[in-house]
Amino acid sequence: MPELRKDVITGRWVIISTERGKRPIDFKMEKRPARGGFCPFCDGNEDKTPPEVLAYRDPHSAPNSRGWKVRVVPNKFPALQIEGELDKHGDGIYDTMRGVGAHEVLIESPQHETQLADLPRDHVESIFWAIRDRCIDLNRDSRFKYILVFKNRGEEAGASLEHSHIQLIATPIIPKRAIEELDGSQFHYKLKERCIFCDIIKQEIEVKKRVIYMNDYFIAIAPYAARFPFETWVLPLRHVSAFEKTNSEWFPQLSDIMKLVLRRIDEVLDVPPFNFIIHTAPCKTPDLEHYHWHLEIMPKLTRVAGFEWGSGFYINPTPPEEAAEALRNHGTHAEEKPTT
Amino acid sequence: MPELRKDVITGRWVIISTERGKRPIDFKMEKRPARGGFCPFCDGNEDKTPPEVLAYRDPHSAPNSRGWKVRVVPNKFPALQIEGELDKHGDGIYDTMRGVGAHEVLIESPQHETQLADLPRDHVESIFWAIRDRCIDLNRDSRFKYILVFKNRGEEAGASLEHSHIQLIATPIIPKRAIEELDGSQFHYKLKERCIFCDIIKQEIEVKKRVIYMNDYFIAIAPYAARFPFETWVLPLRHVSAFEKTNSEWFPQLSDIMKLVLRRIDEVLDVPPFNFIIHTAPCKTPDLEHYHWHLEIMPKLTRVAGFEWGSGFYINPTPPEEAAEALRNHGTHAEEKPTT
Repeated sequence: MPELRKDVITGRWVIISTERGKRPIDFKMEKRPARGGFCPFCDGNEDKTPPEVLAYRDPHSAPNSRGWKVRVVPNKFPALQIEGELDKHGDGIYDTMRGVGAHEVLIESPQHETQLADLPRDHVESIFWAIRDRCIDLNRDSRFKYILVFKNRGEEAGASLEHSHIQLIATPIIPKRAIEELDGSQFHYKLKERCIFCDIIKQEIEVKKRVIYMNDYFIAIAPYAARFPFETWVLPLRHVSAFEKTNSEWFPQLSDIMKLVLRRIDEVLDVPPFNFIIHTAPCKTPDLEHYHWHLEIMPKLTRVAGFEWGSGFYINPTPPEEAAEALRNHGTHAEEKPTT
Repeated sequence: MPELRKDVITGRWVIISTERGKRPIDFKMEKRPARGGFCPFCDGNEDKTPPEVLAYRDPHSAPNSRGWKVRVVPNKFPALQIEGELDKHGDGIYDTMRGVGAHEVLIESPQHETQLADLPRDHVESIFWAIRDRCIDLNRDSRFKYILVFKNRGEEAGASLEHSHIQLIATPIIPKRAIEELDGSQFHYKLKERCIFCDIIKQEIEVKKRVIYMNDYFIAIAPYAARFPFETWVLPLRHVSAFEKTNSEWFPQLSDIMKLVLRRIDEVLDVPPFNFIIHTAPCKTPDLEHYHWHLEIMPKLTRVAGFEWGSGFYINPTPPEEAAEALRNHGTHAEEKPTT
């Protein structure tokens, strides 16, 4: 059973994952994970994953067989385990609880080689619908406080499988970074009675230089204090605090902006490793006037990791204005309005 | 001139480093930095760095020539620049200031191939004396609020030069992670009138299982909520809030524990990339009863970086008790008491 432990100084939580347990010898052997070979996410290999919890598939096809478009399965090596109660307790001066949670994998398409940005627009839309469906379902479990939705693309961004996929982790605590954003935006709201993210959107539209792309319902910007070169945030233009409460009519435009931004990143930066994370309100909260969900994309281009990690102080060699300009002006006009 | 920018939501600061400016093409070309060849840190190449700000050298040798043991020089590509005033100002809803600060490199020895752990004990001691001297000097500059001392070893830990070195960055703001630790430990102090780090040391000595090594003045532990496999903290046993205020008599023991711990990490994990960071009190503060300086070592063994980076939620596949056991029990008894 994995275990959750709290750092008694800063309050950050860590999953001590025994399921994925690693001893020194594992690190020595694992310096370059092998690539190629068998892929459990590919078409026809449905029996090589745990049984699906959701699939959008041909109505004539059986669960866990061919004929699907998007498929969500439990992670075979979960960071948190679905069964059991939390059993919060002390350990001397420390705090701990059992590692209860959900860890699911969303397989974006049956094709091994296809990247998210290269899928047809309606397919990308289906992926975001599937995320929404899983968020709504996981939200019902009283033990879960937060649902982290994220994507690792490329070995250097932490992906252990090549086949394009997204992960969902439902946690029994709210991650520290989410608490920081919630606290920071609440502080602004108390001062001004305005959402800080709505204020950011307003200023960015006015000054233009950090805007990468905008459609009717979403905007992509290079954030003012970008931590990483080409860091990109995608935000809904109108206020909504939780991803799963996004207006249904906005989904085609979410698909449009994500395809465009990810394709531009691939073109400008030569298909770099990247992570994206959906930043959203905690589970079971009412609509929050001070918080605004958004998606943060972090291309992994620099290696100045450890220092930043340890200090929380970032050095970014690419001004976000230059990153936005490069991403804004690249590519053909045909891509501005993808028709697939 | 580099620029400091504050994230308006979470309060974290970022250095937008124009000196190190990178455009898309730089990232495409830079996927594997070349190794080998000319090294500006090697013996005889003293004129290839900016002039030294400190050196422990043969009294008969001239500055910036051969004959040194430890040498500190300004970074040739500084993240922050030493000249100028801060000029704090707003930029619409955002906050910014000029990137004023110091960025120095401590070259640990004239030998290109020698790792910190493999230097003689008195040489390692000199390195920590040099760090102390630079901290005391930089502390005098009224513009600086914090001095970050850190080491990147190996390309994957962010090192751009192979020759063993440590960096110092003096910043005009206190990094977020330092503020979090200061706040967290102050909260504990208000509640209990005890230093949280002293409490941790007491409990760890009692339960033993996370202790890696201990000498008269220092202890090395695998922290209870370790974020990374084999994360190791080195703390002075007696309370002292700032690194540069460490009792002079403790320096030989600091050298002893650092040599032992780093050598064990190299042996057990096959010379992994790592970072270490000295966590210390801000500049110009009186002795703090609630804060306790320490050094955090983070071997870079896993690649699950982006998700953790974005969420502040860590997944660690190696329980710290197992890491401590492996590091504690490895090696010969002769190394317990290095005599070099």
